[in-house]
Amino acid sequence: MNDSKKVNVGIVGASGYGGIQLVRILLDHPHVHIAYLGGDSSAGKPFCDLYPHLTNLVNLTVEAIDLEEIARRCEVVFLSLPNGLAHKMAPLLLEKGVQVLDLSADYRFWDLNTYIQWYQDEREDHQVAESAVYGLPELYRDKIKSSNLIGCPGCYPTASLLAIAPLLKQGLVDPGALIIDAKSGTSGGGRHAKVPFLLAEADNSLGAYGVGKHRHTPEIEQICTDLAKSEVKVQFTPHLIPMVRGILSTVYANLSDPGLVTEDLLTIYSAFYRSSPFVKILSNGLYPQTKWALSTNLCYIGLEVNPRTGHIIVLSAIDNLIKGQAGQAVQCLNIMRGWDETTGLPQLAFYP
Amino acid sequence: MNDSKKVNVGIVGASGYGGIQLVRILLDHPHVHIAYLGGDSSAGKPFCDLYPHLTNLVNLTVEAIDLEEIARRCEVVFLSLPNGLAHKMAPLLLEKGVQVLDLSADYRFWDLNTYIQWYQDEREDHQVAESAVYGLPELYRDKIKSSNLIGCPGCYPTASLLAIAPLLKQGLVDPGALIIDAKSGTSGGGRHAKVPFLLAEADNSLGAYGVGKHRHTPEIEQICTDLAKSEVKVQFTPHLIPMVRGILSTVYANLSDPGLVTEDLLTIYSAFYRSSPFVKILSNGLYPQTKWALSTNLCYIGLEVNPRTGHIIVLSAIDNLIKGQAGQAVQCLNIMRGWDETTGLPQLAFYP
Amino acid sequence: MNDSKKVNVGIVGASGYGGIQLVRILLDHPHVHIAYLGGDSSAGKPFCDLYPHLTNLVNLTVEAIDLEEIARRCEVVFLSLPNGLAHKMAPLLLEKGVQVLDLSADYRFWDLNTYIQWYQDEREDHQVAESAVYGLPELYRDKIKSSNLIGCPGCYPTASLLAIAPLLKQGLVDPGALIIDAKSGTSGGGRHAKVPFLLAEADNSLGAYGVGKHRHTPEIEQICTDLAKSEVKVQFTPHLIPMVRGILSTVYANLSDPGLVTEDLLTIYSAFYRSSPFVKILSNGLYPQTKWALSTNLCYIGLEVNPRTGHIIVLSAIDNLIKGQAGQAVQCLNIMRGWDETTGLPQLAFYP
Amino acid sequence: MNDSKKVNVGIVGASGYGGIQLVRILLDHPHVHIAYLGGDSSAGKPFCDLYPHLTNLVNLTVEAIDLEEIARRCEVVFLSLPNGLAHKMAPLLLEKGVQVLDLSADYRFWDLNTYIQWYQDEREDHQVAESAVYGLPELYRDKIKSSNLIGCPGCYPTASLLAIAPLLKQGLVDPGALIIDAKSGTSGGGRHAKVPFLLAEADNSLGAYGVGKHRHTPEIEQICTDLAKSEVKVQFTPHLIPMVRGILSTVYANLSDPGLVTEDLLTIYSAFYRSSPFVKILSNGLYPQTKWALSTNLCYIGLEVNPRTGHIIVLSAIDNLIKGQAGQAVQCLNIMRGWDETTGLPQLAFYP
Repeated sequence: MNDSKKVNVGIVGASGYGGIQLVRILLDHPHVHIAYLGGDSSAGKPFCDLYPHLTNLVNLTVEAIDLEEIARRCEVVFLSLPNGLAHKMAPLLLEKGVQVLDLSADYRFWDLNTYIQWYQDEREDHQVAESAVYGLPELYRDKIKSSNLIGCPGCYPTASLLAIAPLLKQGLVDPGALIIDAKSGTSGGGRHAKVPFLLAEADNSLGAYGVGKHRHTPEIEQICTDLAKSEVKVQFTPHLIPMVRGILSTVYANLSDPGLVTEDLLTIYSAFYRSSPFVKILSNGLYPQTKWALSTNLCYIGLEVNPRTGHIIVLSAIDNLIKGQAGQAVQCLNIMRGWDETTGLPQLAFYP
Repeated sequence: MNDSKKVNVGIVGASGYGGIQLVRILLDHPHVHIAYLGGDSSAGKPFCDLYPHLTNLVNLTVEAIDLEEIARRCEVVFLSLPNGLAHKMAPLLLEKGVQVLDLSADYRFWDLNTYIQWYQDEREDHQVAESAVYGLPELYRDKIKSSNLIGCPGCYPTASLLAIAPLLKQGLVDPGALIIDAKSGTSGGGRHAKVPFLLAEADNSLGAYGVGKHRHTPEIEQICTDLAKSEVKVQFTPHLIPMVRGILSTVYANLSDPGLVTEDLLTIYSAFYRSSPFVKILSNGLYPQTKWALSTNLCYIGLEVNPRTGHIIVLSAIDNLIKGQAGQAVQCLNIMRGWDETTGLPQLAFYP
Repeated sequence: MNDSKKVNVGIVGASGYGGIQLVRILLDHPHVHIAYLGGDSSAGKPFCDLYPHLTNLVNLTVEAIDLEEIARRCEVVFLSLPNGLAHKMAPLLLEKGVQVLDLSADYRFWDLNTYIQWYQDEREDHQVAESAVYGLPELYRDKIKSSNLIGCPGCYPTASLLAIAPLLKQGLVDPGALIIDAKSGTSGGGRHAKVPFLLAEADNSLGAYGVGKHRHTPEIEQICTDLAKSEVKVQFTPHLIPMVRGILSTVYANLSDPGLVTEDLLTIYSAFYRSSPFVKILSNGLYPQTKWALSTNLCYIGLEVNPRTGHIIVLSAIDNLIKGQAGQAVQCLNIMRGWDETTGLPQLAFYP
Repeated sequence: MNDSKKVNVGIVGASGYGGIQLVRILLDHPHVHIAYLGGDSSAGKPFCDLYPHLTNLVNLTVEAIDLEEIARRCEVVFLSLPNGLAHKMAPLLLEKGVQVLDLSADYRFWDLNTYIQWYQDEREDHQVAESAVYGLPELYRDKIKSSNLIGCPGCYPTASLLAIAPLLKQGLVDPGALIIDAKSGTSGGGRHAKVPFLLAEADNSLGAYGVGKHRHTPEIEQICTDLAKSEVKVQFTPHLIPMVRGILSTVYANLSDPGLVTEDLLTIYSAFYRSSPFVKILSNGLYPQTKWALSTNLCYIGLEVNPRTGHIIVLSAIDNLIKGQAGQAVQCLNIMRGWDETTGLPQLAFYP
């Protein structure tokens, strides 16, 4: 594709970890051109002032956020902002014909009351919100194809839902007893200076937070309910791990059919994800290491049936900033534009 | 206490991480004298050749393992060896009047068949094994007091059982639905050179292992069954965390009485552990960081009742090598000898 | 010593890492009683609100800073504040008869012009500053003994000067060619929320900072000049290492006498530090690991003469927050009060 | 390029970290086809048994090492073996017309006596060794172009020489006073199970090793001598850093002309590396973070002139396994085959 045919994209909120991932991925993407980087606090600064490793490598400047100007220059915009801001921008952008992929929580909920309750915000964009599609391609590929507004999933929901989906979709487990014990690297906290995320505090240690109250809970429940076709509640417990990137989600469920063994479930999972190039089902006896997924858009899944207790345990690993954030957004864009789903997305980690 | 009245203790298997912790703790213990360090592979070596930071600080030499000689010189012996060796040594030592604290799995099981099945070993010391007491002071303090053979708990069982005990003992939860999601630093693997424990492999990553099959499972189930007075099976899933020391155990159970709230449970836990100086129950809203327990014999416990799902989630943090291994053994020794339970044991971490 | 005879001490600036180390160490100190904790931003808060691991273990409250009140209640005060504040408090405290140990840079310089130039501050306490003693006991033990105002050394200078002192004092090296390549864990940056100290930024990485311009340079030069009896300039380069605690200082110098070998130098170092209980000289072929010094007041030193180049390379390792900060201040206090120098100070790490 | 025109390459010693990097990089290389993976200990195993993250992604099997067979199937071979093995294989491979890139020390030395002395090995391939070119493209691009045998540089020499080269080549510094303080992640130790490289030992700590004796010293001196056109000795001190990948080399030299300032040197460095696409010279005041280079073939260089001492301090950062090993070998291959030097090589890190 020659340059004149590339799609012009913009990134609003470029200074954070979501922004830098988008820049990094899109620079390698053969069909897009980064036409705009926006951010209020860093407006006017060369992007490499924020990320000095880009010096002499990336020549972009952050601009003030001006929706009219963005719409003039971009066909597609990624919004990578704190929760509660995208819903003030997306309606105008859409009206001007721009496709919007939002990385915040603003467009993830089918029932805005859930958003309003868990995020303690107000909303006036009900109609626009109704048009949004939940951007998890492995589950909603067809809807994404024809959408102009994507609410990209949270990092924990991505890892957790990919682990759970075949179980609920196929009715293999008791939907009332789902437990998700999730573990994340500290980059999930963003590029914000907060004491608990200092290396001196977070290294050599781990702990849970937001037990039973984390705002990714209703997001997971919404999709689980859709998959199970009956209301699902989950016990979701996030933990902070002393590492930069990566999420491991350990899911516990009670198998409905006690006769199923690990090998059966692996077969079911492999079939379920046959057309999903980024999901890798591991062989019997293998469980994923988060490191395997680093800097890729992959999700590795391993599982085990415990015949002693009747549990199935599913383990899924992703890079929280790629498949859990920026990479998945680009995967959605690929689908929206009719490009191969894997275009421009990293598919193999450097190890170790 | 003047030196001539100190109790002579020996450590067999001094070269490993259990051994070095015992040495470190016992050097500060006012009532004991380290009279013997034993180990076959390092026999003849100054201990500070194995641990150079002890140069000019600790002047002990590792000796060959000679049970007769040990019995002559020691009143108490810690066995810190791989599983399957202690049961060949303990009977003779006991016969000679030596008190034995075993840090391996050999004397943890009331039913030796469980040991034989899970550890694929044979046993001829049935009578001796029957006299062993499970060395978790918070649950079996009285039995420890009058025992000469202690089977010290595994690191995961220590963290997990302290989190679970009040629930089962008081009949507060459904004993059939216990899930333990445990996370450990890599020192749990011992001072053994194995590829998966290399920094280059284990850092920046996490993953589960031995899912549903880890040998700490029957140990946990044995004690849970004792507490519940009915057979309990648990789903136990250990994870390897990129840090040196520390275990966090996240326990999930279904509350029998849906009316109980977090504050109620905290009151119950505080009462349960009122006489246990090493267990610290955190305030409502606080969850433990493993770092808080590092280099101490403490166990921090926090918990949360989730009224949306009916779960109780209990989080416990210990130092796997202290409360999970060497410190707990010394705590048992203190009890056996009638000393204050906290004697010589570190009670406050250096932070951060 | 019974409690009524304990010395009442206060800590101003208790909320930072220096403060928490002082609290931790002094709680174990047999001759002191913590009578006051002060801090402006956290005044009124229980200390365990700042450090939750102290819940149910330490029952102290942070109070507003009121010098008159401090002087009423304390015989000794540790000032653990950002640079530039102590010199506004110390004069009054000293006037009231309080002994002051300052952990900031305010009282480290014999020539206040050096302070004024490198710290861009103004000073009006010239006379008081002249009475201050540089609190490095291994070099200035006698002066500390009779002082009421101690300017405690910086963390880098402590590690570096202990490595250098025998060389300059004995005239063994060319004083014009000293290079100090120092490496520190990130806790040296304090408990301040800054982006470069986030785990997500600092982990898996290392880099230098303040090359040739770090403010510990003139402090090191002052003492080197005193030792060499001629003006010394040093090239000091600090690096940030992805770990919480610890400093390693690698010092390069040109030996004056090319005939000296490693063993000679080790003999000289051992003799030089014979009466310094916290300095441990390693055997030939051993170099220190920072981990060995963690949570102790020790300084480990190893060295190597390179006959091919004529260099001597000295490596010293300390815990930046103990020997490099709070522990050293307590060591000074011990000397000032005539107590054994090691009283209440941790002398052996937990390993690994 | 269609597949039939791709160059068939083999990797001998595929199971180590060098091997897996080569596989990872070459899979993305548009002009080569991996035709053979060899290794004795893992012969017969699917490659993804060694590296499970490759399951369902890479379908290659490790074969026994058979030089005749390799020569039949490959036009180019990478030898990624422990030192001392390549020189028994390369002569035959070259004779059969295969181009050889050796990642060990075997072909790095112009004077085999240096190799024999420092590596305590014997050699019978003097003539072949003489035909070898030192594979540092930034210095020896032209010779590489026409060579069939490349001795790829060590990781430390790569980082150090790129930092030093402009200084010696232009005669800007005193060649007799070079000090290299180098720091490496633990993957430099390879995928070998050794106690000091365990996470439990190496994490939270740092220390030096091989002070003045490391075998990369003569390699650095050989090239420095070539650049300076007079014999150069260097003081080289490697340190182990608690991180997986990355090397930072901090080089100290005495400027010959005291009038030069930082900006002058940056200009000289930028000019020197103008045609070297992988070397990035940072702006005044910026020093490299090793993280910036991770998973790329880049070398970042920052520097500072210290007018107070007359030193120049140069800091260079690379990924030890890419620019310091496998990536550089591929860079050499690109040059040997006349392809663009950057072909198939990663040029931008994922951050953080």
